[in-house]
Amino acid sequence: MSKNLTKRSEDYSKWYNELVVKADLAENSGVRGCMVIKPYGYAIWEKMQAELDRMFKETGHQNAYFPLFVPKSMFEAEEKNAEGFAKECAIVTHYRLKTDPDNKGKLIVDPNAKLEEELIVRPTSEAIIWSTYKGWVQSYRDLPLLINQWANVVRWEMRTRLFLRTAEFLWQEGHTAHATQSEAITESVQMMNVYAEFAQNFMAMPVIKGFKTETERFAGAEETYCIEALMQDGKALQAGTSHFLGQNFAKAFDVKFANAEGKQEHVWGTSWGVSTRLMGALVMTHSDDNGLVLPPSLAPIQVVIVPIYKTEEQLETISAEVATLTAELKKRGIVVKYDNRTTHKPGFKFNEYELKGVPVRIAVGPKDLEEGTFEVARRDTLTKEVVLKGSIVNYVSDLLEQIQSDLFTKALNYRDAHITEVNSFEEFKEVLEHKTGFISAHWDGTAETEEQIKDLTKATIRCIPLDRKEEAGTCVFTGKPSVGRVLFAKAY
Amino acid sequence: MSKNLTKRSEDYSKWYNELVVKADLAENSGVRGCMVIKPYGYAIWEKMQAELDRMFKETGHQNAYFPLFVPKSMFEAEEKNAEGFAKECAIVTHYRLKTDPDNKGKLIVDPNAKLEEELIVRPTSEAIIWSTYKGWVQSYRDLPLLINQWANVVRWEMRTRLFLRTAEFLWQEGHTAHATQSEAITESVQMMNVYAEFAQNFMAMPVIKGFKTETERFAGAEETYCIEALMQDGKALQAGTSHFLGQNFAKAFDVKFANAEGKQEHVWGTSWGVSTRLMGALVMTHSDDNGLVLPPSLAPIQVVIVPIYKTEEQLETISAEVATLTAELKKRGIVVKYDNRTTHKPGFKFNEYELKGVPVRIAVGPKDLEEGTFEVARRDTLTKEVVLKGSIVNYVSDLLEQIQSDLFTKALNYRDAHITEVNSFEEFKEVLEHKTGFISAHWDGTAETEEQIKDLTKATIRCIPLDRKEEAGTCVFTGKPSVGRVLFAKAY
Repeated sequence: MSKNLTKRSEDYSKWYNELVVKADLAENSGVRGCMVIKPYGYAIWEKMQAELDRMFKETGHQNAYFPLFVPKSMFEAEEKNAEGFAKECAIVTHYRLKTDPDNKGKLIVDPNAKLEEELIVRPTSEAIIWSTYKGWVQSYRDLPLLINQWANVVRWEMRTRLFLRTAEFLWQEGHTAHATQSEAITESVQMMNVYAEFAQNFMAMPVIKGFKTETERFAGAEETYCIEALMQDGKALQAGTSHFLGQNFAKAFDVKFANAEGKQEHVWGTSWGVSTRLMGALVMTHSDDNGLVLPPSLAPIQVVIVPIYKTEEQLETISAEVATLTAELKKRGIVVKYDNRTTHKPGFKFNEYELKGVPVRIAVGPKDLEEGTFEVARRDTLTKEVVLKGSIVNYVSDLLEQIQSDLFTKALNYRDAHITEVNSFEEFKEVLEHKTGFISAHWDGTAETEEQIKDLTKATIRCIPLDRKEEAGTCVFTGKPSVGRVLFAKAY
Repeated sequence: MSKNLTKRSEDYSKWYNELVVKADLAENSGVRGCMVIKPYGYAIWEKMQAELDRMFKETGHQNAYFPLFVPKSMFEAEEKNAEGFAKECAIVTHYRLKTDPDNKGKLIVDPNAKLEEELIVRPTSEAIIWSTYKGWVQSYRDLPLLINQWANVVRWEMRTRLFLRTAEFLWQEGHTAHATQSEAITESVQMMNVYAEFAQNFMAMPVIKGFKTETERFAGAEETYCIEALMQDGKALQAGTSHFLGQNFAKAFDVKFANAEGKQEHVWGTSWGVSTRLMGALVMTHSDDNGLVLPPSLAPIQVVIVPIYKTEEQLETISAEVATLTAELKKRGIVVKYDNRTTHKPGFKFNEYELKGVPVRIAVGPKDLEEGTFEVARRDTLTKEVVLKGSIVNYVSDLLEQIQSDLFTKALNYRDAHITEVNSFEEFKEVLEHKTGFISAHWDGTAETEEQIKDLTKATIRCIPLDRKEEAGTCVFTGKPSVGRVLFAKAY
């Protein structure tokens, strides 16, 4: 299998697009802006889902399912939210097709089947969910509601890219309702932390925790917490957001509860989500010019075993040896594939698994059998080691952990080397142009300055880091006073 | 908690609608025909999903994801399929809302954002998937494709009922492609068998395996295999279907492969699905006038423990005892809930778990502590037993298995007692009116007779059982010759 993959240094964007397709993760469909997630890509998403779902349940959340459609009048109830999504939503107006009288075998929209009220295909579900919560909450005893939904949503984006920005995408959206403001804020911070933990421990992707400026905040939120990652081309990627909604949706949908004193109050809300965009982040954090590099925690195949043989007899002896090894690795909970296809040469297989990012490859040939060894190759470093049969199981098991941890460290070092403090706008532009990455700079706190910087440089404020130091300074752009640095970057 | 549930004998349909809502499974939403699946209902669906997904993977299938939308021209490519779904599909025509110039704060569809081609919200995904398969298949080496998708679909039904018939529902749809006709037929029969096994072993619901008449066949299929269940009101419910598609979609979407001799051939296809309709079937198979009855294999809570106490001190002693028991039950993989809410009386809790169908309830009071016993109640039979502490874990573990098996046997006996062979149309109508259930009758094999019987009695042919005997006879309606009996029933 020949890879013919564009090099990252030549054209990072082209490299990404080619890799996603060649590694069998996803492809564009015949529907504008919508992707097909292929089995290998979906298997990674399933692993992400399983871990996230476990983490949500461990923090007390339950899954439920709400309708795909939002009637227009319901959609517009929370004005800011409606305004934020109105420009990019798919609208159902009719409910029937009929045979085209002028063109046999063709169908046309039946003009007699117009809906009384248009339905919006959900771009996010606050409206439909809060209209439901109204019926679920009467007293403080009904709170909190801690609910998550796994679903598809549609945002009619004009320029789409596989996983990163698609008209339809898969995601989870948590929607919680609380009796007090502080409980709701604690929940939104907790979920940002859950996302950060998932990104770091499973995706091996370091993230910066922070909150958004008013300009970048979710439409309808009082505060948007986020995790921000850095890709290998020095661009930032927002990997997950968690919103404190205040009482905005409770007021829009009249969701009240009787508190312990019997007084009616509006409920406090949060919502939080991550999407198939994480697949794009995963690819861009670790992969290289040879193909995908997957962290063992999310790899659909963790270890692949390839036999090297000339005769049928050799293959049989190798297969017997491999059967024992496979069984032992499986006992340790390791996902192993033995590729004994006779239709493809070992070199082809090596290339294929390199492209697909399988973390560990084991090769076994007649010489290994004689000497009681296996050849073990790491995908991330492309290094090989000859390992004795007696220690292979422990070796592989330790190696998978080592790779997981090395990938994180490597990404962390890259990220940390690409956070640059600047103190002038000249420096700001210089870093953005040549070094890229996050720029830590003072900002005067106004939306005007934020917008002017964006217009001039395409860099936006990715977040106000939660752990930033209080530090008096002056805005790099206006020279006005600032109380601490924020992180700018060009972003996906 | 007072149940106020309508009795099945009074109004079966009302009983069902009330139960689904009162037991917290689902409710109607503010969107016409769409339901909200509540956390307790969704937890059952998740258990169904997990088992089915495991069974699909064990039979070699992989999950993937295809777009929600189907462009009209793609939708109409397979004519019969298009015709079958055209009358009930939601159609997206626009992609943007704008502020209403005449009405501040309101939104209207932007007439300048009309799509060039309308998009159909998938009622089923054959069209979009086969248009994708065209790019995936070149040679016989690319076959078979064995793919499943978990998704939402929309069919614009006019009369909807929670779970049984909703405009939007959740389902899985398998779509496979094969090199030969016989392999595709084997696949469709295999998946019917997987569904039957799931229904019987997990839902404790006996089903009849068969295939559909041409009238009842899936639009675009050559053969539709199905599993048919019988509800407690004597109406049948189609619980799952598996279609042999022949080469219909391959021809419509030009999906060809080079066979081993290098000759181009059209691919053979299957598709198969079960949906949230199974939730309705589960409710209607086992539940009673006191509420849900859930088979232990699918119950989100298998055992609930309720403390009976008067003093704080008693509660503490009971809780310590329960902690030990809970730990031991969990070790056996049993899902246990200890309901130590102090805000509700035991009687309220008993009612609640009865309504929600928790298979086993354990009560512990001071007298039990003294005597070293637990009171164990079965939800299905409403019987109680006092069990010694030393044997409680084994007892509960065995009891769960017993309940699972008893529920199946009970449903099987009911079903078998409601299959009636008739040899005249008088008898046919008589049974349909008074005894209900499946009617096993000779039929002349024509669509005309089938339709006339339906018009006169509302009964349809549910299936031609796979295991039917060859038996010469005469059609109950026309007296024309028949080679075997088919099963009629009124159906959901």
